[in-house]
Amino acid sequence: MKALQYVTIGQPPEVREVPTPAPGPGEVLLRVTAAGACHSDSFVMSLTDDQYSAFGYPLPMTLGHEAVGVVQELGPGVSEVSVGDPVAVYGPQGCGRCHSCAQGSENYCPFAPGMSIRPPGLGKDGAMAEYMIVESPRLLVPLGELDPVATVALTDAGLTPYHAIKGSLDVLVPGSVAVVIGVGGLGHMAVQLLRTLTAATVVALDITEAKLDFARQVGAHYAFLATADAAATIAANVKSGPAAAVFDFVTNEAALNIARAVSGPRTDLVLVGAGSVQTTVGLLGQPFGSRLRAPYWGSRPELIEVLELARAGQVRVETESFTLNQGPEAYRKLHDGELRGRAVVIP
Amino acid sequence: MKALQYVTIGQPPEVREVPTPAPGPGEVLLRVTAAGACHSDSFVMSLTDDQYSAFGYPLPMTLGHEAVGVVQELGPGVSEVSVGDPVAVYGPQGCGRCHSCAQGSENYCPFAPGMSIRPPGLGKDGAMAEYMIVESPRLLVPLGELDPVATVALTDAGLTPYHAIKGSLDVLVPGSVAVVIGVGGLGHMAVQLLRTLTAATVVALDITEAKLDFARQVGAHYAFLATADAAATIAANVKSGPAAAVFDFVTNEAALNIARAVSGPRTDLVLVGAGSVQTTVGLLGQPFGSRLRAPYWGSRPELIEVLELARAGQVRVETESFTLNQGPEAYRKLHDGELRGRAVVIP
Amino acid sequence: MKALQYVTIGQPPEVREVPTPAPGPGEVLLRVTAAGACHSDSFVMSLTDDQYSAFGYPLPMTLGHEAVGVVQELGPGVSEVSVGDPVAVYGPQGCGRCHSCAQGSENYCPFAPGMSIRPPGLGKDGAMAEYMIVESPRLLVPLGELDPVATVALTDAGLTPYHAIKGSLDVLVPGSVAVVIGVGGLGHMAVQLLRTLTAATVVALDITEAKLDFARQVGAHYAFLATADAAATIAANVKSGPAAAVFDFVTNEAALNIARAVSGPRTDLVLVGAGSVQTTVGLLGQPFGSRLRAPYWGSRPELIEVLELARAGQVRVETESFTLNQGPEAYRKLHDGELRGRAVVIP
Amino acid sequence: MKALQYVTIGQPPEVREVPTPAPGPGEVLLRVTAAGACHSDSFVMSLTDDQYSAFGYPLPMTLGHEAVGVVQELGPGVSEVSVGDPVAVYGPQGCGRCHSCAQGSENYCPFAPGMSIRPPGLGKDGAMAEYMIVESPRLLVPLGELDPVATVALTDAGLTPYHAIKGSLDVLVPGSVAVVIGVGGLGHMAVQLLRTLTAATVVALDITEAKLDFARQVGAHYAFLATADAAATIAANVKSGPAAAVFDFVTNEAALNIARAVSGPRTDLVLVGAGSVQTTVGLLGQPFGSRLRAPYWGSRPELIEVLELARAGQVRVETESFTLNQGPEAYRKLHDGELRGRAVVIP
Repeated sequence: MKALQYVTIGQPPEVREVPTPAPGPGEVLLRVTAAGACHSDSFVMSLTDDQYSAFGYPLPMTLGHEAVGVVQELGPGVSEVSVGDPVAVYGPQGCGRCHSCAQGSENYCPFAPGMSIRPPGLGKDGAMAEYMIVESPRLLVPLGELDPVATVALTDAGLTPYHAIKGSLDVLVPGSVAVVIGVGGLGHMAVQLLRTLTAATVVALDITEAKLDFARQVGAHYAFLATADAAATIAANVKSGPAAAVFDFVTNEAALNIARAVSGPRTDLVLVGAGSVQTTVGLLGQPFGSRLRAPYWGSRPELIEVLELARAGQVRVETESFTLNQGPEAYRKLHDGELRGRAVVIP
Repeated sequence: MKALQYVTIGQPPEVREVPTPAPGPGEVLLRVTAAGACHSDSFVMSLTDDQYSAFGYPLPMTLGHEAVGVVQELGPGVSEVSVGDPVAVYGPQGCGRCHSCAQGSENYCPFAPGMSIRPPGLGKDGAMAEYMIVESPRLLVPLGELDPVATVALTDAGLTPYHAIKGSLDVLVPGSVAVVIGVGGLGHMAVQLLRTLTAATVVALDITEAKLDFARQVGAHYAFLATADAAATIAANVKSGPAAAVFDFVTNEAALNIARAVSGPRTDLVLVGAGSVQTTVGLLGQPFGSRLRAPYWGSRPELIEVLELARAGQVRVETESFTLNQGPEAYRKLHDGELRGRAVVIP
Repeated sequence: MKALQYVTIGQPPEVREVPTPAPGPGEVLLRVTAAGACHSDSFVMSLTDDQYSAFGYPLPMTLGHEAVGVVQELGPGVSEVSVGDPVAVYGPQGCGRCHSCAQGSENYCPFAPGMSIRPPGLGKDGAMAEYMIVESPRLLVPLGELDPVATVALTDAGLTPYHAIKGSLDVLVPGSVAVVIGVGGLGHMAVQLLRTLTAATVVALDITEAKLDFARQVGAHYAFLATADAAATIAANVKSGPAAAVFDFVTNEAALNIARAVSGPRTDLVLVGAGSVQTTVGLLGQPFGSRLRAPYWGSRPELIEVLELARAGQVRVETESFTLNQGPEAYRKLHDGELRGRAVVIP
Repeated sequence: MKALQYVTIGQPPEVREVPTPAPGPGEVLLRVTAAGACHSDSFVMSLTDDQYSAFGYPLPMTLGHEAVGVVQELGPGVSEVSVGDPVAVYGPQGCGRCHSCAQGSENYCPFAPGMSIRPPGLGKDGAMAEYMIVESPRLLVPLGELDPVATVALTDAGLTPYHAIKGSLDVLVPGSVAVVIGVGGLGHMAVQLLRTLTAATVVALDITEAKLDFARQVGAHYAFLATADAAATIAANVKSGPAAAVFDFVTNEAALNIARAVSGPRTDLVLVGAGSVQTTVGLLGQPFGSRLRAPYWGSRPELIEVLELARAGQVRVETESFTLNQGPEAYRKLHDGELRGRAVVIP
């Protein structure tokens, strides 16, 4: 079969011919119908030789951790799904048995790293191929009538902001303000999800007018440039106190400065971007009762909920489609910021 | 192997020689080290021919839904557990993939009945045998150093009140009163769990002085006879307002009358006994904000939590041990109310 | 001043001239700008002599527990509000100091009945007058620019379903179904609130096609006649399992039969109508994990939230306006079911 | 009357003769029966002239924000309490009417700073005097039979860790580990509260063996020196994974280093000490799903709950008593770390 693989450190990924895998006992072989490209793939391909080795990832490695497909073949002992079933893949799998996994929070399994359990495309072969192996039917969510291309990005770009927002629902009561920093693949989903899941006033921040228009189109009540005086702009235009929650999809110093400037008592600062920042914490270093969280991806029941939102027409991912052969170009556009929404590869 | 089976409607169970089962793909064979006897087994054996058929249970059927054992043999494709591992069995299994199961609340799987998925001993062969099949390693919780006989009853008689109490933690704040009606196998666990999990004042009610002594021994602050004037007795002796929560392990008319008499605004009436009662509900028919709940068994993460409590020495089941051959006698004593605590069969 | 008072048991209310009250220390005098008429007023006026006496209500009594007004005069020591402030009145006041009141849940104050603390219009003089006394500024929520007539019904007909729904948010996840029985003053708010606060599919039931149209206009995804086979109709038209929550604004036997027919594991049956019904409860008498709740009115923070929803244009009460002199006619139309939405009296 | 006042920046407080205040409308005059001395008083007295001015505090200012007393005189319009009632004072008062205050979370009132509403002893005259004014009866919690000296410190040293722990109850399930850094006035309460409110394993860290003994006496399962390798010591001695929650009552760099070293997925890092620290946050800068919180004091309902714990004998503050004249000496010992537990001044 054909697969889009990361082969050489520092080089673009390549389309290669590889053996079609066969499912072992308990496993499922999927025919991939759509796979999403994500900034975290770019991040992995930006690592140096030493850094990549430290992660313990294989090389070559088929990319793609956003996956939907059709069940092609069942390994021995699998009866929970049938050949022909359209399904979405839950990526952040864990051990499946610990306290965290038993609740479906496999994304926080404390044992997965030690057991070398990793998401597809992030440490083992992923979805950018004609076929892929999924270790257990518990990781497959029925897709039903949902369109593969329109849906695939929900498995990460939808699930991650959904999980981030669910953790803030306690503060996002009517009358509250939610600020979204960065209106890209995840951020434009966050705006929609906030409108669907809460009655909060949604304020989006980004660095180009085009992105602000995009934010308004997907439902932001307000959209402003993410400049140093963004907090003052919000205070002047949105009659309200401090933000109840800030969802930062950038997570660098400039973004955190804005996030902190719009914060007050009990504000939830939710850092979703794949970054890290120095800051000051503690009772004399952050607003009383505020919290800084760094949620990661989402849980199994949350993926089911996100797909239900799609089924009800309440969220819609902006996508641009590519063939497998165009996969390297998809990553180039992603890296260069030329995409609006999400790149989807159709094998 | 030997198994304690229900063979003839209306007759006591019998010890019989049956074939030792072999694990299929994804399954696990356990050597049973302890199995608990429960009132719900008695309930099943009290059904008439027609009622039993309506449940769709097989006959003969090996009894026992409380199970701990040692992994004896792995079916193809199982790698999550190893031969020799001591484990406890999660009984109320569901489909494993729906929204409820994905959260670990397999006890509320809406699809299990339609898929004929049933707990061991309650619709398929159970734990009162030398060996038993478990359908998936996800249903096995590591037992570690815990003693099988002392632990087995926690899988139902511990898990059920634990789940019932977790649902009431929001109202069981310091200063609140919790009332436990019925201090048998589940009720004596509820008293301990309330003492461990909350700072509530625990009031136990039962119909004999021996049971009241038992309640006090396991930690009840107060124990009174469950008479018609129990509410007045509580009001006179426990300086407090209405109960925050009532855990009714009997669930008949007399018990519900007491439960309602000690209730007030926002009281949580939790009906855990295997029964049903006529009552009046609605704004003019129950205290403002009160709720009547009927929780069933418990979730997978909750079973893990209950075993952790045992590990920390915070709960202790009163047990009486029997050999497999003595199994029929165990059920007789259970039925005749001659047990203090829980009957455990050691195959 | 003029006031609409209940004067004679069994007779319609009368418009009478009464002394304008003066605010004592800590109290506030409001000039009433709008007052809502409610079924519970009709209920009170339907009581016999003995029943009314048992409630301990005065006679004559100015009606009206839904109130908005403008601060007219401050009693000594009041500084939290200023003369001229437009405000809404929180009706279900409690002692203000107990554990329940300290959380703002004054509607569940266990001490209010014993202290003869009652809502305006339900045990003491209410809002259907030119002026009214409010005991404490803590019971006043700033109205801001909100229109009095459009807003007043939110203080009960909005707050009550809001509180009922908040208690079910844990089960109203995406993909769930919420059923509303009765699309009157409270029910048509419930439909809107469910659409605003959740991503659930909203199914409304009522007994006339006009009401079903009304339900669809305010946002119901589906509306069906509340016949004995309503559950089958829902099952056939709405592809889903059992309802996650049922909000019954009728609360009689027929309504509860429907509510139970659409229930399954963990369904939340929320009985909001001013009634009572006989039913069966317990593990063998209700779906596993289901709960029957009877919430009453709402909390102080919830009233603030409801007014924020109005401010954001997310809810809208259907109203019909009356002068104080037309007050008796408003109650007649309410009693005879001739209103669509809520009757508002403008003194 | 006599009062212990902070008079001169940089100098110890002084006992002075001042006029006894009189309660205005809505206010209550208390005869103080006990007042607690706290590190935050020391912090205020450590400020420079400029810093103190920036806080906007008066000078002289009577110290003391932990207060219990007996109602001495009622201002006009007060009926909620009676002369002679023993009461505890809720310190972190807010506006009383906003969304946060309506829930009883006056400690997070966003309007209090702008309205110059401050706790007694922290911006206005406090409890270290024979009498004190309390602005509203809503701030008074009935003390009942509780001993004033044994109880007074619960109003801050008990309430603050209680509030901190309540925010972590979701992760402190059976089998979890809670780490307490710093076993002083608040920390020794945290150990007790964790034992009473959760089934977690409690590990205490401090810098002297005497403190470790103290930690064990009040209920810590383990107590270790707070050295750079504390995390390794815990890993070696406490068989478990990462801590579920860390309560840091020190909040400096060394403490935070330990806190982070024992952290893992979803750990709750709770910074309670009056300090601030630089650290790294974000998905690549903190464990997945972990949160850094800085809770402040506690809510009104939580103070009621803490007093109920005292009533039930479930917490006990270690105290050392002083007369008002010995007040300056109490602060000296506090500052020099010579106290074990809490200094209480009896006016």
